[in-house]
Amino acid sequence: MSVLTLQDAVRRAEAGMARAAELGVDMNIAIVDAGGHLLHFVRMDQAWLGSIDIALKKARTAALFRMPTAAIGRISQPGGPCYGIEATNDGLVSFGGGLPIIDGHGRTAGAIGVSGGDVQQDTLVAEACLAAA
Amino acid sequence: MSVLTLQDAVRRAEAGMARAAELGVDMNIAIVDAGGHLLHFVRMDQAWLGSIDIALKKARTAALFRMPTAAIGRISQPGGPCYGIEATNDGLVSFGGGLPIIDGHGRTAGAIGVSGGDVQQDTLVAEACLAAA
Amino acid sequence: MSVLTLQDAVRRAEAGMARAAELGVDMNIAIVDAGGHLLHFVRMDQAWLGSIDIALKKARTAALFRMPTAAIGRISQPGGPCYGIEATNDGLVSFGGGLPIIDGHGRTAGAIGVSGGDVQQDTLVAEACLAAA
Amino acid sequence: MSVLTLQDAVRRAEAGMARAAELGVDMNIAIVDAGGHLLHFVRMDQAWLGSIDIALKKARTAALFRMPTAAIGRISQPGGPCYGIEATNDGLVSFGGGLPIIDGHGRTAGAIGVSGGDVQQDTLVAEACLAAA
Repeated sequence: MSVLTLQDAVRRAEAGMARAAELGVDMNIAIVDAGGHLLHFVRMDQAWLGSIDIALKKARTAALFRMPTAAIGRISQPGGPCYGIEATNDGLVSFGGGLPIIDGHGRTAGAIGVSGGDVQQDTLVAEACLAAA
Repeated sequence: MSVLTLQDAVRRAEAGMARAAELGVDMNIAIVDAGGHLLHFVRMDQAWLGSIDIALKKARTAALFRMPTAAIGRISQPGGPCYGIEATNDGLVSFGGGLPIIDGHGRTAGAIGVSGGDVQQDTLVAEACLAAA
Repeated sequence: MSVLTLQDAVRRAEAGMARAAELGVDMNIAIVDAGGHLLHFVRMDQAWLGSIDIALKKARTAALFRMPTAAIGRISQPGGPCYGIEATNDGLVSFGGGLPIIDGHGRTAGAIGVSGGDVQQDTLVAEACLAAA
Repeated sequence: MSVLTLQDAVRRAEAGMARAAELGVDMNIAIVDAGGHLLHFVRMDQAWLGSIDIALKKARTAALFRMPTAAIGRISQPGGPCYGIEATNDGLVSFGGGLPIIDGHGRTAGAIGVSGGDVQQDTLVAEACLAAA
């Protein structure tokens, strides 16, 4: 299991905040380690308070399942194969904005969770965090 | 109430792990007694961390209702007779992968919960645990 | 209610990390707003995972009561006037390391929570965050 | 962070059960990874149901703080420096029976939690698990 450093997390969050500023939306950005434990968090000044928990849970969800949160959403709909999965693990988030950080050996080093805009905006900011390796 | 021994649970988990290896998916396997209390648990080395809680809750759900978790899923959909039931009992899981262990007298001796693959894979592994009586 | 900015929180966390480095202990530092909502969080690379939640709860406790967490501890002991208060508010922390941030008009702008060392070390780091106005 | 395998955890649990049998007490034994996530669990057939959760929490506590649970107990007493710490992290256990597994490089690879006897018995069984490297 690769280790994500605080320095790395700060750099990723800064890239995400720069992208959020371009989009004109204040975001919450959470970065967790491979075990889903919080490493770094920033709330931009006008971001929704209700998005703090969503960002935290998106990051944790993406780490615990080593996949984007949107992939969980594709199986968790009513009638879908994993309907209700959000109620496990003290609460998961199954819409976009959470992305795992995969290292060069295919191992999950941690995950990013972004919340504050619409799902497309959240995903763009999470992708900016991911690209800032 | 029939009594499931640890020895029995270990044998069932080993059968499940052998089936999981055939399927090429690392699984979490939880086995509980008739009261839903944890008896035995294994996490195969690459299994998702987020599936630990799902395996535990599938086993507990199947024991508490003495039916497969997938049967709960058929009544818990929006508009269904037990919509929202997952939020009871500190969290149930209502998709496949949880199976009760019924003894020769029709009594529930415990239950198996498997999580780590897709629902079909989870169910195949749970069935392998069940067959290993 | 005064407004604590992310920029201010980052500067305080950096002062805290510098103090922690002097003390030779890796810390978790959480900064919340006057409503107790998370604004900024850092985990230094070797900090205890169990201290993440303690840092978050210390900051939240100090904000919600506008007093140092150690002051809560003086009234929460067995036989004390608020014995058991820690079980309220989804969990408070009543030992040192949480400090409110008071502005020049005596208003609470937010709070700092530090955890990772012994209580004296945690308090020294929280004080460094506080002094970095 | 070192990685604890299921095979290693099973061998440690077996050593613990052998020691428990010598002591004549049925135990719950939980083994978690360095992030506190469950890897393996066994409940011996006559072990208290109420000790399941204690074993799980002892293992998680020892992993999250990288120290024996008894060390937490020395600081968590009324009037002690960390009174009330048990209420953090969704519940810690601060009496003996939880031990971290430290690898040859001083890194925490996981932890063991044992519950079912008195604290001395629990500790002896946890030590047997630890020695079974």
